[in-house]
Amino acid sequence: MDMPQCPDAKGVVAALAQLLFGFNCNILQSDQFSDETIAPSRFFQRIHFDFKDISVGTGNLAVLETAVADLAKRYQMDWKISYRTQRKRMALLVSKMDHCLFDLLIRQRSGELHCDIPVVISNHSDLGHVAGMFGVDFEHLGFRRDIDKVAAKQQQEAAIQRVLEEANVDLIVLARYMQIFSEEFCEKNWGRTINIHHSFLPAFEGAKPYHRAHERGVKIIGATAHYATSELDAGPIIEQDITRITHRDSVQDMVRKGRDLERLVLARAVRWHVNDRVLVTPTGRTVVWQD
Amino acid sequence: MDMPQCPDAKGVVAALAQLLFGFNCNILQSDQFSDETIAPSRFFQRIHFDFKDISVGTGNLAVLETAVADLAKRYQMDWKISYRTQRKRMALLVSKMDHCLFDLLIRQRSGELHCDIPVVISNHSDLGHVAGMFGVDFEHLGFRRDIDKVAAKQQQEAAIQRVLEEANVDLIVLARYMQIFSEEFCEKNWGRTINIHHSFLPAFEGAKPYHRAHERGVKIIGATAHYATSELDAGPIIEQDITRITHRDSVQDMVRKGRDLERLVLARAVRWHVNDRVLVTPTGRTVVWQD
Amino acid sequence: MDMPQCPDAKGVVAALAQLLFGFNCNILQSDQFSDETIAPSRFFQRIHFDFKDISVGTGNLAVLETAVADLAKRYQMDWKISYRTQRKRMALLVSKMDHCLFDLLIRQRSGELHCDIPVVISNHSDLGHVAGMFGVDFEHLGFRRDIDKVAAKQQQEAAIQRVLEEANVDLIVLARYMQIFSEEFCEKNWGRTINIHHSFLPAFEGAKPYHRAHERGVKIIGATAHYATSELDAGPIIEQDITRITHRDSVQDMVRKGRDLERLVLARAVRWHVNDRVLVTPTGRTVVWQD
Amino acid sequence: MDMPQCPDAKGVVAALAQLLFGFNCNILQSDQFSDETIAPSRFFQRIHFDFKDISVGTGNLAVLETAVADLAKRYQMDWKISYRTQRKRMALLVSKMDHCLFDLLIRQRSGELHCDIPVVISNHSDLGHVAGMFGVDFEHLGFRRDIDKVAAKQQQEAAIQRVLEEANVDLIVLARYMQIFSEEFCEKNWGRTINIHHSFLPAFEGAKPYHRAHERGVKIIGATAHYATSELDAGPIIEQDITRITHRDSVQDMVRKGRDLERLVLARAVRWHVNDRVLVTPTGRTVVWQD
Repeated sequence: MDMPQCPDAKGVVAALAQLLFGFNCNILQSDQFSDETIAPSRFFQRIHFDFKDISVGTGNLAVLETAVADLAKRYQMDWKISYRTQRKRMALLVSKMDHCLFDLLIRQRSGELHCDIPVVISNHSDLGHVAGMFGVDFEHLGFRRDIDKVAAKQQQEAAIQRVLEEANVDLIVLARYMQIFSEEFCEKNWGRTINIHHSFLPAFEGAKPYHRAHERGVKIIGATAHYATSELDAGPIIEQDITRITHRDSVQDMVRKGRDLERLVLARAVRWHVNDRVLVTPTGRTVVWQD
Repeated sequence: MDMPQCPDAKGVVAALAQLLFGFNCNILQSDQFSDETIAPSRFFQRIHFDFKDISVGTGNLAVLETAVADLAKRYQMDWKISYRTQRKRMALLVSKMDHCLFDLLIRQRSGELHCDIPVVISNHSDLGHVAGMFGVDFEHLGFRRDIDKVAAKQQQEAAIQRVLEEANVDLIVLARYMQIFSEEFCEKNWGRTINIHHSFLPAFEGAKPYHRAHERGVKIIGATAHYATSELDAGPIIEQDITRITHRDSVQDMVRKGRDLERLVLARAVRWHVNDRVLVTPTGRTVVWQD
Repeated sequence: MDMPQCPDAKGVVAALAQLLFGFNCNILQSDQFSDETIAPSRFFQRIHFDFKDISVGTGNLAVLETAVADLAKRYQMDWKISYRTQRKRMALLVSKMDHCLFDLLIRQRSGELHCDIPVVISNHSDLGHVAGMFGVDFEHLGFRRDIDKVAAKQQQEAAIQRVLEEANVDLIVLARYMQIFSEEFCEKNWGRTINIHHSFLPAFEGAKPYHRAHERGVKIIGATAHYATSELDAGPIIEQDITRITHRDSVQDMVRKGRDLERLVLARAVRWHVNDRVLVTPTGRTVVWQD
Repeated sequence: MDMPQCPDAKGVVAALAQLLFGFNCNILQSDQFSDETIAPSRFFQRIHFDFKDISVGTGNLAVLETAVADLAKRYQMDWKISYRTQRKRMALLVSKMDHCLFDLLIRQRSGELHCDIPVVISNHSDLGHVAGMFGVDFEHLGFRRDIDKVAAKQQQEAAIQRVLEEANVDLIVLARYMQIFSEEFCEKNWGRTINIHHSFLPAFEGAKPYHRAHERGVKIIGATAHYATSELDAGPIIEQDITRITHRDSVQDMVRKGRDLERLVLARAVRWHVNDRVLVTPTGRTVVWQD
């Protein structure tokens, strides 16, 4: 897989296709998109190719990567090659609610998510048994109470970061993790941290959004999966969906329906990220090539 | 049809059913709802009954209405009887966009909306020919330019109110009418003015919402039909729906998809109102008994 | 809860409401429906009432039930009272696929399904560990290979029936159970056995439906939850839903998307049944009073 | 626009991209798909390119087309170039129902459909005034009653074909046209005739499908837009969608909800066809590159 992104330029499609053809690689799928809302307009492409017949003489993948790097320099192109044989490693961060945790563990085990889950991290101990059911390590990393709040948060984040690094994690999924990360943590893990939160029409910011949506009499509730940034719930949106509500739905009913929504929306976003189908544009929109 | 609403009380269901049975009326459908979020909790009911066999001796509908009024007093109940033979009269207010106008005219003519449309009112002259296609009167009531803004707005609203009264209108539908009404106008027409507007997850208030939703990279756009209040787009919500968006959709595509959404959502809200299926609770939520 | 169903008759609504009022019961919710497609038209009602203030003197629930029985006789009414304190007991029947099994176990444990799950029964041993994760008994009841097919099937069904009876089961959910039951078994468990199967537009009967739907290039796949009858997939429909498909979806993708659909549709149907919200009409349609 | 389709072959992506680059054309969008279910697997591509800077020396579009034709021969590739300046011409065939007719006329006039509508053809005279409202020619081509049925049908189809040819039509839309065309007519207009029909889960073939779906108690009704073939409703599916139904919906309600569905599904299919976004594979599936 190859994810170029560059200022729009004639010839880049041809040059890449020609290069891969020259190495006897077979292009299985190719998606492209030009974002015309940026000046200069920016070109995005995802190429899924098969290199099993890679030409003798040209040797190996290292040579191919060097050739792509050369071409990339010419077109001022950002790029990345992901190999399907290198399974991504995903950490799940949870608090007390188990619906997203169960959902991702089940999907991973069924083969639906092409990744490994080396660790579940939580600020509470409640969900350790769920990780245990699936044989996944569980790290309870709460706040230390013997030091001040700021220091406790720093220590906790440092501990989380350490676990992530030790587990060699590529992707962090906040599966109903009810802590807000510092700007520093968000920046360090930018583009690889996915969060899920409920959304409403109209939006209700602040506390008790379900109660306020209920008072307002909304007929729809939604959920949004996005890349986490330090600005709360403002990161690039990967996926959204909604479910219908009537006047009969209590706040508890809305929360219940919201759970199903959160599971589905988060699972889709994770799947697309794991399959290298999500790109973030310089202005913070996502390009999602759905499978 | 009978739309009682009263503080929740044992016996009200029985008393109403007994009363109608006593008059030999047949209850065809009955929906009820208790709003527990208000204290004391409030009871809402919609009874659809057939009075073709109304008992001799009890005489006529006037006697029935008197009996209901007596019962209502006992239970501190608000109530209303609508007769299917009395078709509601609906005025359509439009500006320059014709999609909702066409949609409602076509649905009315096909018999889908059980109401009459005596008049289309606009602050522009552009859509006169559409009203003409369907043989509906068209009133162009723009602003006078020879007086100051405040006076011009007052004069225009007074002119609209006059047309509404002359046409004996029961229901005012703002079918993409791009003017904001004064508090006075909204209050005078409270509970009988339906508006449609686009909605987003998250919400984008202020100017150019489609542009801002596009910049934000939303994956969903929505539309909301609600009763108009003087606070912009804050009235009781009757219906909402959404449509999916991808990174490929330009602002123009979003506007196009939004049009289909607005037509469907507005048509549903109008239909339910015309069929007396919408009640507003004291806290501004709606009870919508969908057909 | 009270589920009367009788030939449509004036006065039945009033009589029931009056009776409950006489016992000082509070009607919390009442839904009714008249099926006009049957002659004579048939009346269905669901009344949710609270009897905590049941009048002294009238004594107890037995007296109330007797009074309802008397009234029922007068109106030729079928009826049933369910008490929320008597939790239903649900058996899950599975084969090798675990997605519906996991889903129902998780929902039950989270309190979303107001019932108990005393046993999981399977014709294979594969999913025993899943039942074990949740501390639920697992019965592996395969075919005996030392006797002929017909006898083996009879023996297996008898064994299943025995387990159901020993576990005092009210509801049987075929959560991707890949065996066809005999007419006898279906009749014995009529109205309390829920099945889930995939559905297509158009329908593809017979083997390998996903392959055939893929060949046909459908843009939608569906799932249907219904009460099981001996005629395959022809029982009264409780719930249906669909998901979108594109030309890019392989058969495997369709199966994966179908799994999410099956989980959601089956869970909704089970929930409505557990909450006594589903009635079957004499002509085999369902009345579903959604919560 | 360029729509190649050929046996899957390494190098075809590169060769086409290189050719267009050589002519100084800018590829705005490119979609591709390999159908692996056919042997040998087949490759489909849609390239949207801009030729305003087409290189001097190479001269003109004729030279470009010749070059593409040469390349196509090498790869056994079917291809077609459509020019956005050449608006397609669409004929609408209708009977007595006007909802799809109105819908397409309104969308065309609003600029949403990039095509012209030179003529509306009908086997009845009822909808002439609708065509008239939009200034479109209306041809009433009924059956002659003075000759036998087979001859009458032949004469009618011949008359329709003549009108289509005189109006220089590219696309025929059966917008609720209630006649079945002969095999001969279907073959002559293959790949350019779009039909809309209702669909159900499960499917109900034969007469009165809404009645039968109602009897069966379905919870969903659908609509399918497809290319017409002589086998009724069996042609390649372009788009499908559904709407929800409850036990309360009468047959008339289902028909009403079905109308909204038919309008939306047909409009999407027509739009994608007009924008050259639909390809039919050799096995009769469609590749739809949604915009």
